[in-house]
Amino acid sequence: SAGFTQTFGDGKSLSIGLGMRGSYTSAEDGAPSGSDRSNEFNLDSVRVFVSGSLSDTIKATFNTERDGDGNLKLLDGYARFEFSDEFNIWVGRMLPPSDRANLDGPYYINAWSYPGVVSQYPAKFAGRDDGATVWGKLLDKRLTYAAGAFKGHNRIRGASNQGDNMLFTGRLAYNFLDVEDNPAYYTSSTYYGSADVLTLAIAGAYQEDGVGTAARPGDYGAVSIDALFEKKLGDAGAVTLEGAWYSYDTDGVADVAPGFGGASGTANVGGVVAGEAWLIGGAYLLPAKVGIGQFQPFVRYQTFDPDASRFDTKQYDFGVNYVISGHSARISAEYSTVDTGPGADSDRFTLGLQLQF
Amino acid sequence: SAGFTQTFGDGKSLSIGLGMRGSYTSAEDGAPSGSDRSNEFNLDSVRVFVSGSLSDTIKATFNTERDGDGNLKLLDGYARFEFSDEFNIWVGRMLPPSDRANLDGPYYINAWSYPGVVSQYPAKFAGRDDGATVWGKLLDKRLTYAAGAFKGHNRIRGASNQGDNMLFTGRLAYNFLDVEDNPAYYTSSTYYGSADVLTLAIAGAYQEDGVGTAARPGDYGAVSIDALFEKKLGDAGAVTLEGAWYSYDTDGVADVAPGFGGASGTANVGGVVAGEAWLIGGAYLLPAKVGIGQFQPFVRYQTFDPDASRFDTKQYDFGVNYVISGHSARISAEYSTVDTGPGADSDRFTLGLQLQF
Amino acid sequence: SAGFTQTFGDGKSLSIGLGMRGSYTSAEDGAPSGSDRSNEFNLDSVRVFVSGSLSDTIKATFNTERDGDGNLKLLDGYARFEFSDEFNIWVGRMLPPSDRANLDGPYYINAWSYPGVVSQYPAKFAGRDDGATVWGKLLDKRLTYAAGAFKGHNRIRGASNQGDNMLFTGRLAYNFLDVEDNPAYYTSSTYYGSADVLTLAIAGAYQEDGVGTAARPGDYGAVSIDALFEKKLGDAGAVTLEGAWYSYDTDGVADVAPGFGGASGTANVGGVVAGEAWLIGGAYLLPAKVGIGQFQPFVRYQTFDPDASRFDTKQYDFGVNYVISGHSARISAEYSTVDTGPGADSDRFTLGLQLQF
Repeated sequence: SAGFTQTFGDGKSLSIGLGMRGSYTSAEDGAPSGSDRSNEFNLDSVRVFVSGSLSDTIKATFNTERDGDGNLKLLDGYARFEFSDEFNIWVGRMLPPSDRANLDGPYYINAWSYPGVVSQYPAKFAGRDDGATVWGKLLDKRLTYAAGAFKGHNRIRGASNQGDNMLFTGRLAYNFLDVEDNPAYYTSSTYYGSADVLTLAIAGAYQEDGVGTAARPGDYGAVSIDALFEKKLGDAGAVTLEGAWYSYDTDGVADVAPGFGGASGTANVGGVVAGEAWLIGGAYLLPAKVGIGQFQPFVRYQTFDPDASRFDTKQYDFGVNYVISGHSARISAEYSTVDTGPGADSDRFTLGLQLQF
Repeated sequence: SAGFTQTFGDGKSLSIGLGMRGSYTSAEDGAPSGSDRSNEFNLDSVRVFVSGSLSDTIKATFNTERDGDGNLKLLDGYARFEFSDEFNIWVGRMLPPSDRANLDGPYYINAWSYPGVVSQYPAKFAGRDDGATVWGKLLDKRLTYAAGAFKGHNRIRGASNQGDNMLFTGRLAYNFLDVEDNPAYYTSSTYYGSADVLTLAIAGAYQEDGVGTAARPGDYGAVSIDALFEKKLGDAGAVTLEGAWYSYDTDGVADVAPGFGGASGTANVGGVVAGEAWLIGGAYLLPAKVGIGQFQPFVRYQTFDPDASRFDTKQYDFGVNYVISGHSARISAEYSTVDTGPGADSDRFTLGLQLQF
Repeated sequence: SAGFTQTFGDGKSLSIGLGMRGSYTSAEDGAPSGSDRSNEFNLDSVRVFVSGSLSDTIKATFNTERDGDGNLKLLDGYARFEFSDEFNIWVGRMLPPSDRANLDGPYYINAWSYPGVVSQYPAKFAGRDDGATVWGKLLDKRLTYAAGAFKGHNRIRGASNQGDNMLFTGRLAYNFLDVEDNPAYYTSSTYYGSADVLTLAIAGAYQEDGVGTAARPGDYGAVSIDALFEKKLGDAGAVTLEGAWYSYDTDGVADVAPGFGGASGTANVGGVVAGEAWLIGGAYLLPAKVGIGQFQPFVRYQTFDPDASRFDTKQYDFGVNYVISGHSARISAEYSTVDTGPGADSDRFTLGLQLQF
């Protein structure tokens, strides 16, 4: 959403931006051998943002991302009919209305790593799907609503959705204090002390025959609640608290495996797991400017409790951001431990760099 | 070909544009099950257009398109030596001189869907191939000529063209009324009442050993004629009529299958079918502006008669465009029936949206 | 590195550029049959260059290239912390400090074809790898240093580097005459008579367990020396001489094959060969402008002597560039013969066109 804009009169304009996340990671048993620590640089994300407007109401957004093999892929591609703050229609590939983590994306969360233990709404690529969303901001922009219909999950021969049912998703978020300043129904998990925020949101998704095989399909349902609190403390910095709860339901059916029927990694097929999950996290922006930035320590805890297993997944993250220019330039150090059951725990240290232009 | 342009003095400039086509389709037996109606959103095309000029005569064009799996692919990439209206040389990946449908591309045709039943010149990706074209406009720009040499078909070990013969193609188009206003030898199938058009064109392609196997190769030959008539009716709108005839010859040889020898989907290998085809279509632009656009109902009929089968393929399309800003912003509804032989017919309804910036 | 730049105040700017190389080649036994001459157009390279600066010290570069199948891939993606001429840090995917040929890339060499017989530092894609480089220019910019740590070679299960050792590389170059005017530690092999150049450089790379299998790994080491001499001859044009020597060491171990363990073509796995190599070349820029350009004949000789075989590879190139606008617009004709052992020689003629905007 960053970028430089050129206007051309008559409401016409073109914006171009760049986003980049790179990191060094040392992860226990993370080397290809499976028994050595990994020790590597990775280019986690390189995005190009292009958007244009044909008039005040007709616009489009086109963003690209690289996959792990260096191939450029379409991230977002949607037409925007933006009539007013209250009523807008987007059509194409986009983030479906969902939980705050997914709508933050990796660039607008507080920790370095994405909270993938809990945030598991199904998607084609990087949280995106093809469809249409109606959204708007009501009550002096305090209430953001978004509802959409999408291609959805398991749309392949032999899997549950070979009959082509759509995925329906929605989100309602209410700002009790300042209005969060984000494009459309997108979110951020910190404003670095520029606003007092208390937002409570509920999101959900439903798809008939969304999980399982064609012979034994189940309806897919997910509901989540997320809350964000951020408070400016004047000369004392700013404090951020975040929490989320998720419930994923598969109608008592086990989903097919990813790759079922030769599905590609971006086909949105297989891998849905029923269970409950929750996340809690906090951050504290230190007031003092040290060099060209400010320090922001953070902690986060995530857990996923699958219905079909007695072993929960738990992840603890501790770290500190060095915030040079908000979400546009920051450096993060993060230490994480992940526990997926008895005897199956590992730790990871990451040094990350994020830039947006 | 849309886009915003920045000039930098000395004939230098850079243009950037965006194109996007998205649709909702409900097609009989179109769901993955093969027996349910499909019910889905699709992002049919997302293009980025970049072109630059180094001087008044040296220019280049670079366009990208996404494939079905969301990967960004090179659509066009050609250097342009543009000396005068009468004489120009393009080198790289481009649309070979061919029929009007292919030179329209999906963005400049009258109906929503591409007339793929009849328009079957061989290509690597989206009608494109690698090579060079000489083109120009003579006789007060009334006569457009274009002739090119390209990589062509079946250039793979074991297939007919393992000896590396080029594909030669050409097109001659004469404007009897107003001169059609298009870049280079490209075309549009409607000007929305801004011009009176009567154009007759002939195109052809030839490649020695262009079809079949290495053991039993055949020469490939194609010829087509297309005509466009559009007439402004003053206060009564505008009417458009279009027709085309094609003959595809394979020297009595059956081509290899697509994917022969492990060929990728963009290798331009296999699948050529000998036969005759024709298309006829019409559209009528209603004069009244309704809201922010004008309605343009359209009809189209296509048929392909393969030499080797007694069953013709026939497709009928009926629909209406809601034209907001020419080819740059329009919404289309289209109902189609396709008949590929006794008992093999299906219908399809599509609601499409096209934007270009 | 070409491109148009827009500034936005506060040190913010965005640059966009295009590069393109296309050619016609007729190569002995080069057709898919293996026994016919090839006869084909090829789009060798299409690059988009995007770079942005957030401030005078924080910048980023994002470049794309197409692969042989027309897919767009990430070429470069790095964050640039540029503090001064003397000290800078780049992080992401970039060209590791290496030999002049690799730092020229195909766009800034003298001949048309890349000297791949000798220039064989391991890389993921087009000479690039993921990592970090520290670089700067000292002693009135006469001494360029660059040192980096990268993902490196054979980082896959079962291959030598499954334990995740980094590749370390470095380069030192000293300009005895004029300072070569290039971005960062990048190079060019001709300045078309705009400077008097005498540069001597040494580069090297080392990776523990960089070659071979996990069961029998070897350390990888490479060292190379390159020299460039270019002299303006006033009214008589300009002369260029270039030489390079390489030594590739694999610790007495044979490397795995490319594609080992299902590695993709951009995984930087397998294929390293121990041996010595050298290159010598020269070019002469004729002073007279003929039409819109100047002729520059060139010759080049490369040889690679593998430790494990008594047959050297030798390549001779003869050709002429028609230089319209330096490295931004030139046409090249090149005749090459390659000899890979007794009875295994072939020749090739290429006509190439290079544009950068």
